[in-house]
Amino acid sequence: MPQHYTPINFKAKLAAFHTRWAPKIIAAMNDYHFKLAKIEGEFVWHTHAETDEVFIVLGGRMKIALQDGEVALESGELFVVPAGVAHKPSADTECHILMVEPAGLVNTGDGPAGELTATTGEWI
Amino acid sequence: MPQHYTPINFKAKLAAFHTRWAPKIIAAMNDYHFKLAKIEGEFVWHTHAETDEVFIVLGGRMKIALQDGEVALESGELFVVPAGVAHKPSADTECHILMVEPAGLVNTGDGPAGELTATTGEWI
Repeated sequence: MPQHYTPINFKAKLAAFHTRWAPKIIAAMNDYHFKLAKIEGEFVWHTHAETDEVFIVLGGRMKIALQDGEVALESGELFVVPAGVAHKPSADTECHILMVEPAGLVNTGDGPAGELTATTGEWI
Repeated sequence: MPQHYTPINFKAKLAAFHTRWAPKIIAAMNDYHFKLAKIEGEFVWHTHAETDEVFIVLGGRMKIALQDGEVALESGELFVVPAGVAHKPSADTECHILMVEPAGLVNTGDGPAGELTATTGEWI
């Protein structure tokens, strides 16, 4: 009997959690993770010295403050924060995003560890 | 003056090409590429021995036949084809997808090179 594999459905996965700024791993590709997050309000300034980081907006709007400017993203838009560039994500209202980054990356990078620092290993 | 950076808009990028099965690079993250493609009909069976490959459907529906079964994806769904697994993407009607894979990967993998084999370096 042929197997019927199940795809990963963003809406179904997003319905499974509510905490803001707590990315959940939904898929692995080689040594990278795909993570969903619900964001609202302001994150902390931080930098990932060794890796680029991809943000894709699935619903709502977000901004990413960068060291010399900013970018505004809406649903269906992608932005790559280059390695070494300080950035601070924010969203005025709830926004749903997909992030792609190396497995094990700490969400607050070199920024101050605190209540926004997320365990990177939580799969949903 | 702060810079206003421009995000990558999937719809705008998709409007820029029409050829089926000819992935276009829209972003780079470290040594990976994000590629948009318009697919319709059947691709060829092939395998990427050394890397997983991610498919995300942005619009429409697609299937991926796998060596022991298949998966059906619709808009807002993701599937990871593991390294070494033979697969054959198809779509009954036009489908728009985002793929994530190592830079330089040949779309037909170890399959027969032919008219579907795409240059991997084309950015839009």
